Amino acid sequence: MPTTASLVTNAPGAPFTKQQMPLRELGPDSVAIRILYSGICHSDIHQARDEWFEGIFPMVPGHEIVGDVTAVGAAVERFKVGDRVGVGTFVDSCRECEYCLVGRENYCLKGNVQTYNGRHYDESPSFGGYAQDIVVDQNYVLSVPANLDPAAAAPLLCAGITLWSPLKHWKVGPGMRVAILGLGGLGHMGVKFSAALGAETYVLGHSPAKAQDAKEFGAVEYLVTDQVFETHKNFFDVIVNTTSADLNVDGLLSLLRVGGSLLNVGLPGSSQTYDPFSLVTGLKSIAGANTGGIADTQQMLDFCGEHNIVSTIELLDASDPSTIDHAYQRVVGSDVRYRFVIDAKTI
Amino acid sequence: MPTTASLVTNAPGAPFTKQQMPLRELGPDSVAIRILYSGICHSDIHQARDEWFEGIFPMVPGHEIVGDVTAVGAAVERFKVGDRVGVGTFVDSCRECEYCLVGRENYCLKGNVQTYNGRHYDESPSFGGYAQDIVVDQNYVLSVPANLDPAAAAPLLCAGITLWSPLKHWKVGPGMRVAILGLGGLGHMGVKFSAALGAETYVLGHSPAKAQDAKEFGAVEYLVTDQVFETHKNFFDVIVNTTSADLNVDGLLSLLRVGGSLLNVGLPGSSQTYDPFSLVTGLKSIAGANTGGIADTQQMLDFCGEHNIVSTIELLDASDPSTIDHAYQRVVGSDVRYRFVIDAKTI
Repeated sequence: MPTTASLVTNAPGAPFTKQQMPLRELGPDSVAIRILYSGICHSDIHQARDEWFEGIFPMVPGHEIVGDVTAVGAAVERFKVGDRVGVGTFVDSCRECEYCLVGRENYCLKGNVQTYNGRHYDESPSFGGYAQDIVVDQNYVLSVPANLDPAAAAPLLCAGITLWSPLKHWKVGPGMRVAILGLGGLGHMGVKFSAALGAETYVLGHSPAKAQDAKEFGAVEYLVTDQVFETHKNFFDVIVNTTSADLNVDGLLSLLRVGGSLLNVGLPGSSQTYDPFSLVTGLKSIAGANTGGIADTQQMLDFCGEHNIVSTIELLDASDPSTIDHAYQRVVGSDVRYRFVIDAKTI
Repeated sequence: MPTTASLVTNAPGAPFTKQQMPLRELGPDSVAIRILYSGICHSDIHQARDEWFEGIFPMVPGHEIVGDVTAVGAAVERFKVGDRVGVGTFVDSCRECEYCLVGRENYCLKGNVQTYNGRHYDESPSFGGYAQDIVVDQNYVLSVPANLDPAAAAPLLCAGITLWSPLKHWKVGPGMRVAILGLGGLGHMGVKFSAALGAETYVLGHSPAKAQDAKEFGAVEYLVTDQVFETHKNFFDVIVNTTSADLNVDGLLSLLRVGGSLLNVGLPGSSQTYDPFSLVTGLKSIAGANTGGIADTQQMLDFCGEHNIVSTIELLDASDPSTIDHAYQRVVGSDVRYRFVIDAKTI
């Protein structure tokens, strides 16, 4: 069985080590990818620490992958050796259910195959992007525009599509006012996309030190959350919550115009509370969305290529694997501007 | 000052009596209406009992009004004497705000003038439909199709538009599965509209005794709420909650297909809780809506005329005003099929 150099955690919360890990065989539909860069998503940390559910160990996290094609199976027509490609949060789906059939593989009824900490339909565990290589079915591989910095493009594959998908679904564009709640890995992509889509974009946050960054990403103003409830009632068409903190749901709903939506892409760990009057009195919605399908992800990447949009990153040299452990601590402490990306050649 | 015979409650929860009450003067834009029928809405009871906020007494409730025009002001062009007309939940609005300008007078930023238990912009209290006459500005008067039974048409003016508005906003139609939660005054209109709009319509409820009625209103099936969580996951595109009970929000969200919406038109008295995972995992929404604007209400009435849709009612003879007190008790006990309507000539 082929193997690849990987950054591995062998038990929940265990420090990362370098190990050779199994690589999938090259089948007729496979695309073999030499990974160039791999982003660190907050969900990597939740899963490596077993904070959401019991994980599959040893674990190789990573679902924000950019690399170059090194080999393709006999049936592959969509990619050729040398192509710049990406892999996101899932690497297979049932291809038969009503959602797969309409390109919403992220909501596959059978359950898609997560890029890591999942199981392929042959029951073998899936290993992710903190590695030098990955082999993925051509239908779950994305084309990454050649003009984009590949390191800064990596986070588009999860953080990017996670914001792109709801902004497009709720038709964000010119004439709308959008607030992005929280300016982190997710939030900063939300600001860039919302502004590029033509919406008047604001950031709601607790860290005025980030106000300058917010404006550079395209926001017209950085608003301190605690103050905004007095000053911006009936103001926004869409608020996107990118944080995992408990929310003042009724307060946020009061900031929305009639017909407005509070979209959740960040996930608080506990249930939230709302007063039905807050919805009924203004035709308002509380909604949520979860990444996007393959077609939407490709559309997002193409848009990024046209508008030269990438993530704002800190590049990590993983020669010493404890770099990852330290990076995780900094992510949990919101001490990264705005996404860590692993340089895969240092693995 | 002109007056009209009215059913009046003089203090919160006080029994109804018959009294002459002030009628507005006929101004240039006024339409004088001889009331034929007036529906009893659950919100009448909340307000007559001060259950929502401190009311204005003496109070003449009633915002589901059908009558005939008896006189018009000099500037009235839209109506003439003898026209069959209706009046709903509001009788004026600011006409200047962004919502009034687009026909969403129900969300008027200044606050529209509620048909009763409100104040006109001249500060005089508003008196509603439990009366023989009402005088209303022509811009807030609806045309009621002549082919509809006027008694059964009265509840269209609140119960009807309250269901019509969200069903249209969320684009209910062929190819969609809709569940109406609760088969009362609101719910039975939801079933009739959803079915007439072409959606596969279900009722969720606790009273299988209403199953036959549900089917007569157009539902394909009556489902007992407690059992449905096992049998109908990922099934509905829209669920409309017409009850005021506390909700199993996460359970209801689990019944929705990807992209589905839980719409609230009934109002629980307390805050509700939801797990954000219930939204994010399926692109789902919790939303609310509150009646509709004048244009939407007219569209609904025209649709009812074309499809011969009216409310299913019990007609009340109010010769003895205590009839209203008893009817209120029955509404609170969900003992009405499906809306009480007062015969105004008995007032």
